[in-house]
Amino acid sequence: KEYLTTFFAATHPKYSTSVFRFTKEPTHVAVPYVWKYKLAKERLLELAEILPPEEAERRNINFVNPGLKQYFPAIAAATLPTLRGGIQMLKPGERAYTHRHTANAFRFVLESPSEGAYTIVEGHKLPMRPGDVILTPNWTWHDHHNEGSSYAIWFDGLDVITAYWLGGVFYQDFGDVNVDKYQKIENTNEDVMAKYLGVKPTFETLPSHLPSSDNPLFYYPYSLIRNSLVRLAGKGKGDPYYGIELEYINPTNGSPAFPTMSLKIRLIRGKDELKPIRRTENRIFIVFEGSGTFEIEGQKYVVEPYDVIAIPSWKKYSIRNDSNENLIVFSYSDEPVFKALGFMREKKEE
Amino acid sequence: KEYLTTFFAATHPKYSTSVFRFTKEPTHVAVPYVWKYKLAKERLLELAEILPPEEAERRNINFVNPGLKQYFPAIAAATLPTLRGGIQMLKPGERAYTHRHTANAFRFVLESPSEGAYTIVEGHKLPMRPGDVILTPNWTWHDHHNEGSSYAIWFDGLDVITAYWLGGVFYQDFGDVNVDKYQKIENTNEDVMAKYLGVKPTFETLPSHLPSSDNPLFYYPYSLIRNSLVRLAGKGKGDPYYGIELEYINPTNGSPAFPTMSLKIRLIRGKDELKPIRRTENRIFIVFEGSGTFEIEGQKYVVEPYDVIAIPSWKKYSIRNDSNENLIVFSYSDEPVFKALGFMREKKEE
Amino acid sequence: KEYLTTFFAATHPKYSTSVFRFTKEPTHVAVPYVWKYKLAKERLLELAEILPPEEAERRNINFVNPGLKQYFPAIAAATLPTLRGGIQMLKPGERAYTHRHTANAFRFVLESPSEGAYTIVEGHKLPMRPGDVILTPNWTWHDHHNEGSSYAIWFDGLDVITAYWLGGVFYQDFGDVNVDKYQKIENTNEDVMAKYLGVKPTFETLPSHLPSSDNPLFYYPYSLIRNSLVRLAGKGKGDPYYGIELEYINPTNGSPAFPTMSLKIRLIRGKDELKPIRRTENRIFIVFEGSGTFEIEGQKYVVEPYDVIAIPSWKKYSIRNDSNENLIVFSYSDEPVFKALGFMREKKEE
Amino acid sequence: KEYLTTFFAATHPKYSTSVFRFTKEPTHVAVPYVWKYKLAKERLLELAEILPPEEAERRNINFVNPGLKQYFPAIAAATLPTLRGGIQMLKPGERAYTHRHTANAFRFVLESPSEGAYTIVEGHKLPMRPGDVILTPNWTWHDHHNEGSSYAIWFDGLDVITAYWLGGVFYQDFGDVNVDKYQKIENTNEDVMAKYLGVKPTFETLPSHLPSSDNPLFYYPYSLIRNSLVRLAGKGKGDPYYGIELEYINPTNGSPAFPTMSLKIRLIRGKDELKPIRRTENRIFIVFEGSGTFEIEGQKYVVEPYDVIAIPSWKKYSIRNDSNENLIVFSYSDEPVFKALGFMREKKEE
Ligand SMILES: [Fe+2]
Ligand SMILES: [Fe+2]
Ligand SMILES: [Fe+2]
Ligand SMILES: [Fe+2]
Repeated sequence: KEYLTTFFAATHPKYSTSVFRFTKEPTHVAVPYVWKYKLAKERLLELAEILPPEEAERRNINFVNPGLKQYFPAIAAATLPTLRGGIQMLKPGERAYTHRHTANAFRFVLESPSEGAYTIVEGHKLPMRPGDVILTPNWTWHDHHNEGSSYAIWFDGLDVITAYWLGGVFYQDFGDVNVDKYQKIENTNEDVMAKYLGVKPTFETLPSHLPSSDNPLFYYPYSLIRNSLVRLAGKGKGDPYYGIELEYINPTNGSPAFPTMSLKIRLIRGKDELKPIRRTENRIFIVFEGSGTFEIEGQKYVVEPYDVIAIPSWKKYSIRNDSNENLIVFSYSDEPVFKALGFMREKKEE
Repeated sequence: KEYLTTFFAATHPKYSTSVFRFTKEPTHVAVPYVWKYKLAKERLLELAEILPPEEAERRNINFVNPGLKQYFPAIAAATLPTLRGGIQMLKPGERAYTHRHTANAFRFVLESPSEGAYTIVEGHKLPMRPGDVILTPNWTWHDHHNEGSSYAIWFDGLDVITAYWLGGVFYQDFGDVNVDKYQKIENTNEDVMAKYLGVKPTFETLPSHLPSSDNPLFYYPYSLIRNSLVRLAGKGKGDPYYGIELEYINPTNGSPAFPTMSLKIRLIRGKDELKPIRRTENRIFIVFEGSGTFEIEGQKYVVEPYDVIAIPSWKKYSIRNDSNENLIVFSYSDEPVFKALGFMREKKEE
Repeated sequence: KEYLTTFFAATHPKYSTSVFRFTKEPTHVAVPYVWKYKLAKERLLELAEILPPEEAERRNINFVNPGLKQYFPAIAAATLPTLRGGIQMLKPGERAYTHRHTANAFRFVLESPSEGAYTIVEGHKLPMRPGDVILTPNWTWHDHHNEGSSYAIWFDGLDVITAYWLGGVFYQDFGDVNVDKYQKIENTNEDVMAKYLGVKPTFETLPSHLPSSDNPLFYYPYSLIRNSLVRLAGKGKGDPYYGIELEYINPTNGSPAFPTMSLKIRLIRGKDELKPIRRTENRIFIVFEGSGTFEIEGQKYVVEPYDVIAIPSWKKYSIRNDSNENLIVFSYSDEPVFKALGFMREKKEE
Repeated sequence: KEYLTTFFAATHPKYSTSVFRFTKEPTHVAVPYVWKYKLAKERLLELAEILPPEEAERRNINFVNPGLKQYFPAIAAATLPTLRGGIQMLKPGERAYTHRHTANAFRFVLESPSEGAYTIVEGHKLPMRPGDVILTPNWTWHDHHNEGSSYAIWFDGLDVITAYWLGGVFYQDFGDVNVDKYQKIENTNEDVMAKYLGVKPTFETLPSHLPSSDNPLFYYPYSLIRNSLVRLAGKGKGDPYYGIELEYINPTNGSPAFPTMSLKIRLIRGKDELKPIRRTENRIFIVFEGSGTFEIEGQKYVVEPYDVIAIPSWKKYSIRNDSNENLIVFSYSDEPVFKALGFMREKKEE
């Protein structure tokens, strides 16, 4: 084997196994897809039956892009070329060991008890109430707990496909470098919000074991976010393409929540319809409140709470709120990667 | 007149009018100084008697540095080489015309009625409650109103000395470019906080008539800030030199509140004493809660609420809380200028 | 098909097709590999026989990573997970049509006539002399010409694997949007160097059709670069791990030559040996002068001019100069991507 | 003395010493002024007679703004509010002690022997040939030498007025912290250009005693700069307001040469005339080749080589080349300060 090839294959059989042509516009083997929460949750409940409690942290169902399934068999389950999404469940009384990894991750809580479910990130106890967003940035110690009286289900979003594909995955168990298997609680969500909403402390910074690009806020309560959306909705319908949309930002630099992932939440008022758009980013939406219709490249998908919609680069899509109530959709995408590398483009359609 | 000079003056009388020598450490004609609020307020109340209502916006008392008074006679009243500070009063029923200027300014409210005093910044109605900080950044339309039942007094902080000295002052009255003399109210402090605390809107940005470096948050309520300070004070005494100190930040970039001024607030717990420090910045402190002692280059100053303390570059100072209650001091400085120009240094003393 | 999976596969056959585990350190299906120039050139000369002149621009031989061949069959020939490399030949009298693409590319000239081979980038005629580096950044019009008396062979380096994998590939032929198929020459390498070495023009910037992140210098002559390396070699052996290494920079911001690729050149003095290192980046070396030995994870590879060495993320490697002459190796890597996303790490070994 | 004042002075004699009003456009006590080189050189030659050799480093003539002379008597001779300029002479055989200061400075060489005059900056021996620009950034050790056969005269440009006014001046003699009074020569201008023109070394950075904002290039030879200007002049007349203008940049970040000063050089072709403009910056021009006319706020000044022109903020000015030869003017300004602080504006007039 010589491990040499050429793009020209037509007249020379020796090289015929490999053909690459630039395309006029982005194309990818990943495809648009919609996963219904009802089915995914059913599968998750099945796992809850067959997995023992000590494997609680592996009790998750991942959304696999039909177009990527065949190309990354030995690599990872990819929802879009750079991103993975899944849902995870913790039953009452369960907890998962403390660990950390370079892949950035966040939790967007779907169903949870009113009290008792929480994640600890770098010693901060952060509640997991429906709609809350909890970040576990690059190399932060984290573990999940459910001391409530009913199960907790959340959406896990990760850039692990990016991290793995580049070759940037490091992993560590807390117990490997500490006596205990669990980190201690030293602060709360109130503490971290006190330090980073509108202000920053001059007397302390991120622990030195963390990358300086990490977001120290860790926590965005839905109560705060929802209030913002509803207040803004009282002012108008927002942008014709974006609706009323807020991005979760890293307060220390005004950048996206992660260097690899942009997290946003969008409210579309009753009966409103957004205009179609194409963006080079790969984006995953999760419906949180209300119901509506996504139209992607001419195909319509009716969606309801916690359904997951994957939109690969440059696919034309629009969103319509079919009801009279607000439609609220959360999303995450690799937009920061496109911007950092100079590949971000968008095209507004009519 | 030739308008030529030389540094060498000893042996040549022709050039003897001008001598300049580099100094080993920063020196300046500005001096440390403390102004007592009691006296300044007395003068302000006098002005309230003699000035007619239509001159309400000029009813202010400025703090003039004894060392600078002689050098800038025709220029401006400077509290420190780059900064001006003063107190202003609005009696019930008064208001000031809408205007804007390139000089950045902020209001730190000292005494005000529980309801009715407010500033409008770019159409946002922002309450003026004790301890609130209201920004009027570069070229933002603003006006003040008191519809309450008692007078309102606030501290005005400006970078106008910098702006004037560089040659960057532009000014405009709203009435000169609009039919009305007052801007309209279209939003509130709740709206602007909904858009910029932890998030940012993707569907709108600053109006294009504003510099991109402007801070769009405009408002920091004391209720939020004080809660943060007290919460952090429950964790420990903070930094030995800084105490428990928070900087008000521009949420769109994590930078200081203004490109020219850093606004900070510091809590020193009962009986705590901070270690002495020198910093190249020029810094003005305003006591807000509690009482204590500033020691500046060996001289002690006992201070109480609303007293103003000016500390020029590189003067050694420390702060001690003499009581058992929290001491809370607000401050502003030209630290961002020092950082942008490469001149920031500090020296921690014992 | 449900397109759902779980990481837990051991006890539940339904999900057994997909397993993903975090690894303690980076691992990838890409492998270290060395391609000998002698063989690649032989294949290129074969193509020169069988391809007609009008297909000159497709006459290239690409270096395919043995580990990636099976995973990206329908995608692209990848040398490393983010990068592609190949060699291309233009016979005397040949030229390639003007086109542009969002994927960034550069040419590192290996063998060429003393005069007559050149690339035109955005109207700038840039000579292709051995060792010269010519950039064709994101969306810049470019075409290659050989008006010399012998063939020209150069190395093509591209981030096309990144661009394709993200979904960011746009492509355009000049003839599709212009009357002519070729752009006109309006400037030379001397012009662009006059504008960007140590200075920048205040009266013109990049054409607005280009991304602002593009590097406007386009050209780095080997005469300049080699002189720098040799001069520095006269001062010492440089860094124990890096040797005497220069990075080609975008002069408008001091950043790497491309937002996606860092281009560097390294001189190792006669008989010197660099210490082993691991870096998360994916890096491809091309030997340009001298000969030596690469040791990668314990495996030794003797290399000589124009051999190509691929080193995936985190593989331990070192370089030794076996001769008394200078060893000069050019390289490109995805280091800027790792830095932008927060994944850059390195580990110096003994 | 209470050191309190108010802006309202008309009706209250107590406060009548201080009046400040915002102006619609920038105004300053600094005035436009032109100093003829012939006269300044005459004064410098006089000093050469009366000053002993050991005071060689103080043998300089400074340009004092008529409007600032009265306001900064005890402070410093200011050419414009932020900048100082002067000319300095070193006779054959003279040298000046090694020292450093936080104020940034540069030398623009006017008259010098063909060989033998040089400045040493951080161990780099940099020739002083006519038109060469030599930087001595913040806290860099430097000393000047003339081993040539005739005197050397250069223009000194400094931000010392800024540094002093802020309170950021630190100074040190080499002899105070070293055994010797002179630093050693370890590198040349060729070395530093080899490291920073188009490239940057990966194996070494600025010494840690220097601020990270320092420009490491230190040297811009006129031979390189003039070649660039003339080459670009062959392409056209450049911008209607700026002519053919190049800015000297810090190659590590593409920023101005100093964080406090922008250095530019401009060629106006024979008989060309630039359109009038206003800019908020304070700018000093030095004529280097050719002759022409500056028109500043309606007043015309005929200028010839080495004449110095000071233009304060927002003064309307234009430049006309009266001859058939190129007119080349060097300039420095505080534009980076205006940009950093958000005060930069310009207005193009007809
Ligand atoms: Fe995890
Ligand atoms: Fe004002
Ligand atoms: Fe191409
Ligand atoms: Fe000096």
